[in-house]
Amino acid sequence: MFFHADDATVCALSTAPGMGAIAVIRVSGPDAIGICHDLFSGDLVKADSHTVKYGRFMKDQETLDEVVMTVFRAPNSFTGEDVVEISCHGSVFIQQEILRILVENGCRYAERGEFTFRAFQNGKMDLSQAEAVADLIAAESEGAHELALHQMRGGFSKEINDLREQLIHFAALIELELDFSEEDVEFADRTELTKLLLKIEGVLTGLINSFRSGNAIKNGIPVAIVGRPNAGKSTLLNALLNEERAIVSDIPGTTRDTIEDRVTIDGIQFRFIDTAGLRDTEDAIEKIGVERSREAIKKASIIVYLFDINEMDATTVEHTAETIRNELHEDQHMLIVANKLDLSDESAAKAADGHPRETLFISALNRKGLEDMKESLINLSNLAHLDGQQTMVTNIRHHEALTKAYAALKEVMQGMETGLPGDLLAIDIRKALHHLGEITGGIDVDRDILGTIFGKFCIGK
Amino acid sequence: MFFHADDATVCALSTAPGMGAIAVIRVSGPDAIGICHDLFSGDLVKADSHTVKYGRFMKDQETLDEVVMTVFRAPNSFTGEDVVEISCHGSVFIQQEILRILVENGCRYAERGEFTFRAFQNGKMDLSQAEAVADLIAAESEGAHELALHQMRGGFSKEINDLREQLIHFAALIELELDFSEEDVEFADRTELTKLLLKIEGVLTGLINSFRSGNAIKNGIPVAIVGRPNAGKSTLLNALLNEERAIVSDIPGTTRDTIEDRVTIDGIQFRFIDTAGLRDTEDAIEKIGVERSREAIKKASIIVYLFDINEMDATTVEHTAETIRNELHEDQHMLIVANKLDLSDESAAKAADGHPRETLFISALNRKGLEDMKESLINLSNLAHLDGQQTMVTNIRHHEALTKAYAALKEVMQGMETGLPGDLLAIDIRKALHHLGEITGGIDVDRDILGTIFGKFCIGK
Repeated sequence: MFFHADDATVCALSTAPGMGAIAVIRVSGPDAIGICHDLFSGDLVKADSHTVKYGRFMKDQETLDEVVMTVFRAPNSFTGEDVVEISCHGSVFIQQEILRILVENGCRYAERGEFTFRAFQNGKMDLSQAEAVADLIAAESEGAHELALHQMRGGFSKEINDLREQLIHFAALIELELDFSEEDVEFADRTELTKLLLKIEGVLTGLINSFRSGNAIKNGIPVAIVGRPNAGKSTLLNALLNEERAIVSDIPGTTRDTIEDRVTIDGIQFRFIDTAGLRDTEDAIEKIGVERSREAIKKASIIVYLFDINEMDATTVEHTAETIRNELHEDQHMLIVANKLDLSDESAAKAADGHPRETLFISALNRKGLEDMKESLINLSNLAHLDGQQTMVTNIRHHEALTKAYAALKEVMQGMETGLPGDLLAIDIRKALHHLGEITGGIDVDRDILGTIFGKFCIGK
Repeated sequence: MFFHADDATVCALSTAPGMGAIAVIRVSGPDAIGICHDLFSGDLVKADSHTVKYGRFMKDQETLDEVVMTVFRAPNSFTGEDVVEISCHGSVFIQQEILRILVENGCRYAERGEFTFRAFQNGKMDLSQAEAVADLIAAESEGAHELALHQMRGGFSKEINDLREQLIHFAALIELELDFSEEDVEFADRTELTKLLLKIEGVLTGLINSFRSGNAIKNGIPVAIVGRPNAGKSTLLNALLNEERAIVSDIPGTTRDTIEDRVTIDGIQFRFIDTAGLRDTEDAIEKIGVERSREAIKKASIIVYLFDINEMDATTVEHTAETIRNELHEDQHMLIVANKLDLSDESAAKAADGHPRETLFISALNRKGLEDMKESLINLSNLAHLDGQQTMVTNIRHHEALTKAYAALKEVMQGMETGLPGDLLAIDIRKALHHLGEITGGIDVDRDILGTIFGKFCIGK
């Protein structure tokens, strides 16, 4: 079903769909320059790579549009093939007509991610870099952006390839021993090898453990705000949104379908999960047994317990906080936030009055205490110390492969301890090598896996 | 409020908003190359015009993205200024960051249409051509596209400028006479001038009259389908939509906000106005006095009276058709369509049975008779004979200016008949010249008018 994997010349709209001032249609493949040349008033055949020609895109001897065509000659293009990028006026009509005419003249519509797939096939990037391209395009926060860019630029692949090379060296020595098995020689110094294995184990552990943070940065940190309906949840969210540049908020469709409000703080995205189910329940938080509030809390990394300082006494707050605390898993954190410090003079007095020590006192309305709250969110996210330049696993597929490689490595180590014969050791090592190879595509990756990976891309990339 | 009209270097996203594989940010102005060079890993200062450089877009010494920059050097660019087009990965985050960094480094955000405004200012195109750029981007049908393209390529401007030149020649001769007024000479041969005026009048009349068609092609032809709720309106619309490539239907936002279904037939767009107000009324069409059905009919150029052949007898149909006919204005047409020829064997028999002669018999469900219906719609639109390559006025502003020019011309002609003195004649001629000049921007166009014109553009064009 996925990928013709032929050498057809393919075309697709590469800019965002819809009307714009201009749109760019990308054509890649052996006939890209020839096909575009025939449809163009200018000369592309003689055009140098990385040059731009202005002219008319022709349709049945008539001008369809005035366009700019950019020629990239193989292998110096994104895909590694001949590429022409057609920059046309951004009407949907023109976009569709140009694509239609290209197809009529020998192109095929590119599948999702097919340009990047070809870049991978032609050795312009490895598989983890190709995956990073999709992540880069989807990145909505600075943190997610930096991780994706770092991975796309090869940071991640380098670490994986270093690991693989060390393992291949190890495997080769062990396999060499097998050839001389009757002579009972040991080419692989077992002490050195154990050191190497421990080193690799350390790196693998680090990468595997980075997944939690990497995933949090990439997908955002889920936060549930619980509390009575009038505790000021939406005022708080609006205040947080207004303070930060709401990167996603004005893009149609990105938030409309979800039941989340996204706020990016210090480059890290927090996803405030809607606890709409709680809204109708007058005394929602005390009735924490309600399934929906349990669900909201279960999904969150951070639970913000928000209450109106003028309405709740310290005992009730402590009781509720305790109820929530009992629901939490090991990796979850709670933030107790007293809101509406603004309403009355009593508020300030009450603030000091026996509330849990860790309580934050804010006024969402007057934007007081928000900086403290944001700092607390960042701290509880455990991402404060990360700079985005370090290698971090963000991809669940990579995480799985690393975990499998780690398991195989562990078996190698156990095998060495128990004096397992070299041929069996070698099998475990090859297994680990295979799983690491899956990440960068260093081995033949299964067609289905490729389909899954590139199927997540948008058309035109 | 509108247009700084400074010589700042401006920047904007030029591709459609939202996430795409790639996005293009356009930078134009005297510092375009310098600013982009400073933010780029490669060398733009030495880059030739119309060349493309691949490299990294830098943010605080770190890579923000891998980009391709295209350099266009003045005057060989869209705006006539130095232009750099930055093709980046299409995440919204990257788009916003690049724009932010450009502004931090001396650019200003471009206003709507500012790139095209600069092209106009720098003599790359006249005003009517600039307006055609916006029309071209907005064009949703082949007809609208062809008209806009024709106008953008100067077809319209040429006709207007020819007219103006002839009028200027006339004015100059008359004004020359004024210098010699005491001598009572006539430099302008009145017979020749009358011939010229008649010729100009003919061209103006043609252009003014073309507005109805031009406007219909540009904005689509409004069609109201009236009839009882079960007459099969939506089946008919779906059948029409499925037969034609629904250019607009899959673009988010284009139809969702309107109460229209748009169908393009033979490159001409028909806008089926929702007569939703009629839906709840069991016997809507007989109660034609209802205000909302009147409104729907008033807006339409074509009224399709759709009825179920199995439900309505010929007398009722004739009566209803007559009721509608009495509501029509001179420029409106009615199409009587009998639907559901499929339901029973009786249908065919009934079809011949005394219905108005012009009745079309269709089955929307089985897609019978749709070709006839489309042909009738095209014929009633009066656009069947147009090929889109002829000069046609599509812009209400142009239509107004032409109408004013025509009125002034008429006064000149009357003045000549009544022997009006040359100085008064000259005033009327200058008036006509002024109104024609407004179209192409050949005179100093009022800043407010420019604001209105370019304010309709999208950002980035």
